[in-house]
Amino acid sequence: MKYLHTMIRVQNLESALDFFINKLGMVEVRRKEVPEGKFTLVFLAATEDEPPLELTYNWEQSEPYNSGENFGHVAYGVENIYDFCEKLQNDGVTILRPPKDGKMAFIRSPDQVSIELLQIGDPLPIQEPWASMKNQGTW
Amino acid sequence: MKYLHTMIRVQNLESALDFFINKLGMVEVRRKEVPEGKFTLVFLAATEDEPPLELTYNWEQSEPYNSGENFGHVAYGVENIYDFCEKLQNDGVTILRPPKDGKMAFIRSPDQVSIELLQIGDPLPIQEPWASMKNQGTW
Repeated sequence: MKYLHTMIRVQNLESALDFFINKLGMVEVRRKEVPEGKFTLVFLAATEDEPPLELTYNWEQSEPYNSGENFGHVAYGVENIYDFCEKLQNDGVTILRPPKDGKMAFIRSPDQVSIELLQIGDPLPIQEPWASMKNQGTW
Repeated sequence: MKYLHTMIRVQNLESALDFFINKLGMVEVRRKEVPEGKFTLVFLAATEDEPPLELTYNWEQSEPYNSGENFGHVAYGVENIYDFCEKLQNDGVTILRPPKDGKMAFIRSPDQVSIELLQIGDPLPIQEPWASMKNQGTW
């Protein structure tokens, strides 16, 4: 058995691609349009040689997708968690759990999918403004 | 950025490990007990060199975790989808979406996490009893 991907559903494909590609920096590795089923699958990855995230876009989905508890989050490692979160903030993404500890942050996608960001390697030295930043919402 | 893992929550760690290790054949690659937070994290992978699935077990969780729609499933490739599904059935796992097409099946974990099984490479020739087997439930 071999891990292939994690699938999430997105209500608005354009918003989702803006978030994952323009804001997080992922790349589209594959796309499949299925007109007879009225859905599109888009596979995104942080690097092309890793298992992708599969976005399922049902063309006629009119309601937001709800969130459950059995699935928690997808996690990505980043080179510098402070720089990464600062760029996200500048792009209008709310840092729900700021990287107070130089190690871990949480954000949510437009469809409320929880995303954990983890500093690759040792935690960075604790520093402001992150150390004093308040948590927001849930993740 | 680099994909690290997908996290799911499990209400009963023993049932979850029985499912993922004994039934699906995954291996435990790492475990972290956090007594001060009353939780245990267990990282499982199909092969040790792939990104793991993280199980979060909150010791005091008394209710089942509910499911949402924004997260869809995790997908794993298998060498022979008929053999794999037959073994699962013999182990008491319900094949919700049988591999009628020699290509794709769906099951759920004890916490109702949807799992897609995909034949690696070309689909297998269509064959009974799979071709006539009915779908059950949702996935």
